[in-house]
Amino acid sequence: MTIRALVFDVFGTLVDWRSSIADDAKTLLSPLGLTTDWDAFADAWRAQYQPAMEKIRSGQRGFCKLDELHRDNLDTVLSQLGWQHVDASTREKLNHCWHHLEQWQDVKEGLSLLRQSFILAPCSNGHIALMVHLARHNHWHWDAITGAEIARDYKPQPVVYQASAAALGCAPHETMMVAAHSDDLKAAAHAGLKTAFIARPDEHGPGLGESVATGPVDYSAKNLIDLAKQLGCQ
Amino acid sequence: MTIRALVFDVFGTLVDWRSSIADDAKTLLSPLGLTTDWDAFADAWRAQYQPAMEKIRSGQRGFCKLDELHRDNLDTVLSQLGWQHVDASTREKLNHCWHHLEQWQDVKEGLSLLRQSFILAPCSNGHIALMVHLARHNHWHWDAITGAEIARDYKPQPVVYQASAAALGCAPHETMMVAAHSDDLKAAAHAGLKTAFIARPDEHGPGLGESVATGPVDYSAKNLIDLAKQLGCQ
Repeated sequence: MTIRALVFDVFGTLVDWRSSIADDAKTLLSPLGLTTDWDAFADAWRAQYQPAMEKIRSGQRGFCKLDELHRDNLDTVLSQLGWQHVDASTREKLNHCWHHLEQWQDVKEGLSLLRQSFILAPCSNGHIALMVHLARHNHWHWDAITGAEIARDYKPQPVVYQASAAALGCAPHETMMVAAHSDDLKAAAHAGLKTAFIARPDEHGPGLGESVATGPVDYSAKNLIDLAKQLGCQ
Repeated sequence: MTIRALVFDVFGTLVDWRSSIADDAKTLLSPLGLTTDWDAFADAWRAQYQPAMEKIRSGQRGFCKLDELHRDNLDTVLSQLGWQHVDASTREKLNHCWHHLEQWQDVKEGLSLLRQSFILAPCSNGHIALMVHLARHNHWHWDAITGAEIARDYKPQPVVYQASAAALGCAPHETMMVAAHSDDLKAAAHAGLKTAFIARPDEHGPGLGESVATGPVDYSAKNLIDLAKQLGCQ
């Protein structure tokens, strides 16, 4: 029953994608004379996320990296707003904002504590380069980058969790998925992994995130520092 | 012509596999009453390396991780020595010695200097878990683990170098292969990468390694600290 590796959801669990995207979109689009509710802009972009991945999970579209899906989804959102005139260079810059999202306050210290006792890797739907850039931006030290790109499919497909564990040389039951989303943890448990829920009550705006897991999990923590304490890392 | 990422050969370039394996084999096998020239034992094990990978490169055998090839090769070497009676547990321990090889003296500091200016990843024939364990053992900070496992083929196949660059979000010409082996660098250059040669004159025993590259390279350095200086990292 020994846990050897922790694998992490990233968007929402480690980084506050919503505030970051809202801020960056405002910074990049306001100078063009465009204005909107920037939080709603971030929500609209993120709303396209699952449908885009579902095309790949269902086999309707071959695997491609998240940058490509984000870019398609951005084009959709800009069209919805009647902002078709936004140039390609600005669209590329906006798309790259997903590479430098800001972390939640506890993450850097929490990962550092957890790394004393466990192998750490992201198990995100973000691709390797995006994960590398987020880690550089937020000063994280991963042991490896696992997730959708090495599995060539998207969570919650079981292969993504299992490929992460296998890449780290661990059995699924030696690997714990850490996430702020109950559905991610349910899928990880189904794939044979242990599970740790992290509360991110403000992910979708103040009070609009998951505060408690909606299903059974092995650990439930307020944040990563709390998880580290529960796992005996000091 | 900007280089954004450095990818590294590991066995021989970053770690002294020969002395490490010789020492570990002596430690594990001497208590069983076995004795031999332990450097020659390491050489014999390594001599099976290219033929084993060639079966995969040629399509004769499906891709498998290096642990599996190392284990097959160990069985061959033990048979050659008439040591068929070495038990499975000892063979597993021996095989795992490739996960904690000792680094050359300049490597930890050199990688740390280079990481200030470049994305760093191994581009080794070793698999992800083996690379994770070597990094932990030697206190290296990789941005990601690339190489044979993500390409599902073995160097010097061009796809391995190209897959490493692509995983890091770089074009081949933005990526530099760093190695102590001219044939590895020749293949990397053929795949479109820049090349840096590192002298490891003692890899195969005193004076029995490459001191100078046998073909054209973009950089040639005494060690990783020297390479960092040449690339402007202080």
